Amino acid sequence: MKETNKAVVLLSGGLDSATAMAIALDMGFEVHALSFSYGQRHTTELEAAKKVAKALGAQEHRIANIDLSSFGGSALTTDMAVPKGRAPRDMEKEIPITYVPARNTIFLSFALAWAEVLETSHIFIGVNAVDYSGYPDCRPEYIRAFTAMANLATKAGVEGRTSIVIHTPLIDLTKAQIIQKGISLGVDYSLTHSCYDPSPRGKACGQCDSCLLRKKGFAQAGVADPTQYS
Amino acid sequence: MKETNKAVVLLSGGLDSATAMAIALDMGFEVHALSFSYGQRHTTELEAAKKVAKALGAQEHRIANIDLSSFGGSALTTDMAVPKGRAPRDMEKEIPITYVPARNTIFLSFALAWAEVLETSHIFIGVNAVDYSGYPDCRPEYIRAFTAMANLATKAGVEGRTSIVIHTPLIDLTKAQIIQKGISLGVDYSLTHSCYDPSPRGKACGQCDSCLLRKKGFAQAGVADPTQYS
Repeated sequence: MKETNKAVVLLSGGLDSATAMAIALDMGFEVHALSFSYGQRHTTELEAAKKVAKALGAQEHRIANIDLSSFGGSALTTDMAVPKGRAPRDMEKEIPITYVPARNTIFLSFALAWAEVLETSHIFIGVNAVDYSGYPDCRPEYIRAFTAMANLATKAGVEGRTSIVIHTPLIDLTKAQIIQKGISLGVDYSLTHSCYDPSPRGKACGQCDSCLLRKKGFAQAGVADPTQYS
Repeated sequence: MKETNKAVVLLSGGLDSATAMAIALDMGFEVHALSFSYGQRHTTELEAAKKVAKALGAQEHRIANIDLSSFGGSALTTDMAVPKGRAPRDMEKEIPITYVPARNTIFLSFALAWAEVLETSHIFIGVNAVDYSGYPDCRPEYIRAFTAMANLATKAGVEGRTSIVIHTPLIDLTKAQIIQKGISLGVDYSLTHSCYDPSPRGKACGQCDSCLLRKKGFAQAGVADPTQYS
């Protein structure tokens, strides 16, 4: 396989990144999946990422250890309460406390480093600017700015050999469209995990922003939701 | 003290970042120093960073654990041989194997996360585009692109509250000018460490790019070099 067929795919274990990975594979990329142990309160999503990488057929799957929790600032890495039962219109009003400061920037930076070592310019991230939780680092203008920076940051960019491409195949899709796309590509969503606040046994709470967006997506897609809610 | 007086300062333990920190303090910032344990071959530079942070008077100093060595790709994180005895004009010709893929991007991303938690928009990095080793992520155009991206990545940027400022006080200075500036601000350069390939006891090799640039800087500054060479 040509080295240009390699792609680094950021894989969280959630519904979106699993779909982004399936799309990368469908486009013919050899997938090098990258997840992070970043001080999450629960490891359910990393277990989900491992299952998804294996089931879809990643060439390899690495979990990088980085310590974000020492900086604090998010309900996902500290013991702050996760908001429950918010209406979608309220999610769009403000950036919630589940936002992890600069998370996608850090994740994309690691993906960039790995892409450079793999000598590929292709990175996939499952960000979505439609049915999302109001995070600033999920917007198209953010991705464009990261790409511009990445092309100045790296050997390949400086030497004019290639240009970094951050693929965001889900960015304009609704959650329902993402699910329909994934189903068409054979994604088994029962392996994925979206909940911000799962039970000790890994069952989804059904009430956090992420669960609510997921439930709505399956309902609108007309697909049975395979999630185990507690 | 106003919260806007806080600054995150990237501190490597080298000559440049120590000087950048002294400048931040001289400008009246309360310094929150950030270093990384990133799989370096030697820990001499982290020990130097601790001494510098204490001697100059950082408010706090954190060392974030991140694993870059698992990606490979650099003589600084693997057992590849560090180049020795290169002439300065050769250093500028190509990006050397001591380049760590996307390193400054990753470091600045963590600084951005911490700055967001500290509710400050000020970050200092001691990059230098004059007497440097040809790294792409030390150039002014790279820093400008990172800043543009950072302002789209963060809560503060989205809410229009503030704009991220990446301070690069050394970017246009020669190594000699950096040393003269640091001396005027009371930096004790005997605490700093620049060598890419120190002896087991932490003595500088005197022959790698970093040692050669440092030696030349002290000579041109007319300042005695306090470095212990092996």
